Amino acid sequence: MESKVRESFDRQKFMTTLGARLTVVESGLVKIECDWQEKLIQQNGFFHAGVITSIVDSACGYAAYSLMPEGSDVLSVEFKINMLNPAKCEKVIAVGRVIKSGRTLTICEGTAYDENEEKILAKMMATMICVNRKS
Amino acid sequence: MESKVRESFDRQKFMTTLGARLTVVESGLVKIECDWQEKLIQQNGFFHAGVITSIVDSACGYAAYSLMPEGSDVLSVEFKINMLNPAKCEKVIAVGRVIKSGRTLTICEGTAYDENEEKILAKMMATMICVNRKS
Amino acid sequence: MESKVRESFDRQKFMTTLGARLTVVESGLVKIECDWQEKLIQQNGFFHAGVITSIVDSACGYAAYSLMPEGSDVLSVEFKINMLNPAKCEKVIAVGRVIKSGRTLTICEGTAYDENEEKILAKMMATMICVNRKS
Amino acid sequence: MESKVRESFDRQKFMTTLGARLTVVESGLVKIECDWQEKLIQQNGFFHAGVITSIVDSACGYAAYSLMPEGSDVLSVEFKINMLNPAKCEKVIAVGRVIKSGRTLTICEGTAYDENEEKILAKMMATMICVNRKS
Repeated sequence: MESKVRESFDRQKFMTTLGARLTVVESGLVKIECDWQEKLIQQNGFFHAGVITSIVDSACGYAAYSLMPEGSDVLSVEFKINMLNPAKCEKVIAVGRVIKSGRTLTICEGTAYDENEEKILAKMMATMICVNRKS
Repeated sequence: MESKVRESFDRQKFMTTLGARLTVVESGLVKIECDWQEKLIQQNGFFHAGVITSIVDSACGYAAYSLMPEGSDVLSVEFKINMLNPAKCEKVIAVGRVIKSGRTLTICEGTAYDENEEKILAKMMATMICVNRKS
Repeated sequence: MESKVRESFDRQKFMTTLGARLTVVESGLVKIECDWQEKLIQQNGFFHAGVITSIVDSACGYAAYSLMPEGSDVLSVEFKINMLNPAKCEKVIAVGRVIKSGRTLTICEGTAYDENEEKILAKMMATMICVNRKS
Repeated sequence: MESKVRESFDRQKFMTTLGARLTVVESGLVKIECDWQEKLIQQNGFFHAGVITSIVDSACGYAAYSLMPEGSDVLSVEFKINMLNPAKCEKVIAVGRVIKSGRTLTICEGTAYDENEEKILAKMMATMICVNRKS
C-alpha cells in the first residue's frame, strides 16, 4: 500500500516543484511536509495559500487512495478550506485523514500545521472519488 | 487601481514559480493565465488541482482587492472548489469575479477554463477579507 | 420527467412543513418558492438561513434528479452556501441548475432570490450522487 | 453567557418549528437536539438534509455567539456540509465547536450525530461574523 502511494506521489511533478515530501503513509492517514522557500511566498513573505491548499489536498487524496483497491485511481471531486492563521512559519505539515470511506466516494479532513505540528494554519474538508485506472 | 493589483501580484513569488500571468484587471474582475509545463502536473500528466486552485484563488483575491480602499490588503478567509473536468489542456485561464462587495467581506466566484475559455475545468466560491496593511 | 420530480417532492414532508412549492421543473433546472411565515424566522424576523439552505438544496437535488435515469434516486453528497444578503423579504425563490452532469456525480449551482428574483440572498455549490433506488 | 444564548435561540421560531432543543451551552461549544417527526422527513423517511443542516448551523452560530462581546449579534457568512451517513435515526444531536475565534470572524466545526452520539451523520465547517446589534 505504501509503495503504491509513494509511486503515485513521485509522478506528481508539482509536488517536486513545491519541494513537498511524503513523510507518513498509513491506512487512511497521510502526512506531507514542505519547507519555506522564497519561491513559495505570497505578497507578505508567508507561504502562499495555494501552496498550503495543494499539499493538504494531496495529503487528503493519498489518505483516500491508501484505502482504495488495486487498479483504481483517486481524483479530487471538491474541497473547501478555511485559512485560520497566517502561514508565518519555516515548514508546513499537512495531515490528511479519511473520515468516511465508501466504495465510490471517500470523505477526508485535512489540516495544515506549522513546523511543530501545534498551530493550525488551515482546515480542509474534501470529497475524493475512486475511478478505474486507464491502462 | 490596476497598478496596485499588478504590484501586489509581482510580490507573490509563487505566481512566478507557476509561470502565471495577470492578463485582465478590471474593477471586480481579474484574469490570470498559466501555460502547461511539466513541473505543474499531477500523476496523469494534467495540470495539478493545486495549480488550478492557486490561480483561481489569486484571481478571486485580486478581483476583491481591486475594489478595496487604498492602504488595505486582502486575505482569503476560505474557498470551496469543485473540479468539473480533467485539466487536459495547454493553458488554464482563471477568472475571478466579485459577486458581493462589503466593507469587511467580499464574496467572489471563480472559474477555471481551458485555453479557449470554453470548457469549464473548475468552479470556486470564495470569501475574502479586507485588512489594514501593516506599514 | 416532471411527474417523477413532483412525486418525489411530495414525499418530502419537510417541504410541506416549510410551505415550499415546486414552481418550475425543466431538464437540469428547478425552482422552489417559499413564503414568509412567522414559523420560519431567525432571531431578527428574517427567513432562517436553514430554511433558505433547505429549499436551495432541494432545488439543486431535483435539478440533478431531472437528468437521472429511471429507477435511480438522488442524494446530497455535500454543499457550500454563502449568505450574501439578509433574507428580509416576503418570499424566497430558490433556483437549482446543473452545471456538470456525470453518470455518478452531478454538480449544481443554486441561488436564493427575493420575491422579485432580483436580489441574491445566497449562492450554493452542491455535489449530488445518483444511487440505485431500493425497491 | 448561557442566558443570552438561550434568549436568542428562543427568538428563532424556526427552531421551535423543528422541535429543536438547546441542551448544552458552554464557552465555544453548543449542542442542539431534535427528535424524529414525520414533518421533518425527506422522500425516504429519514431526517431531511435541510433539518440537519439547520440545527448544525445553529449550533455553530451559537458556539461562536457564546464567545462574542455583549451587544453583538452573530450571522452565518457561509458553511459547507458533507453528508456522511443517511440520517436513519430517532434523534439528531448537533454539536457546534469554535476552532478559531477572532474579533470579526469565528470559524466553527459542526457535527451531526445519531441519538447515541456515536454515528456521524454530517460534518460542517462554518464561518461566522460578529456584527453590532441594531437597537
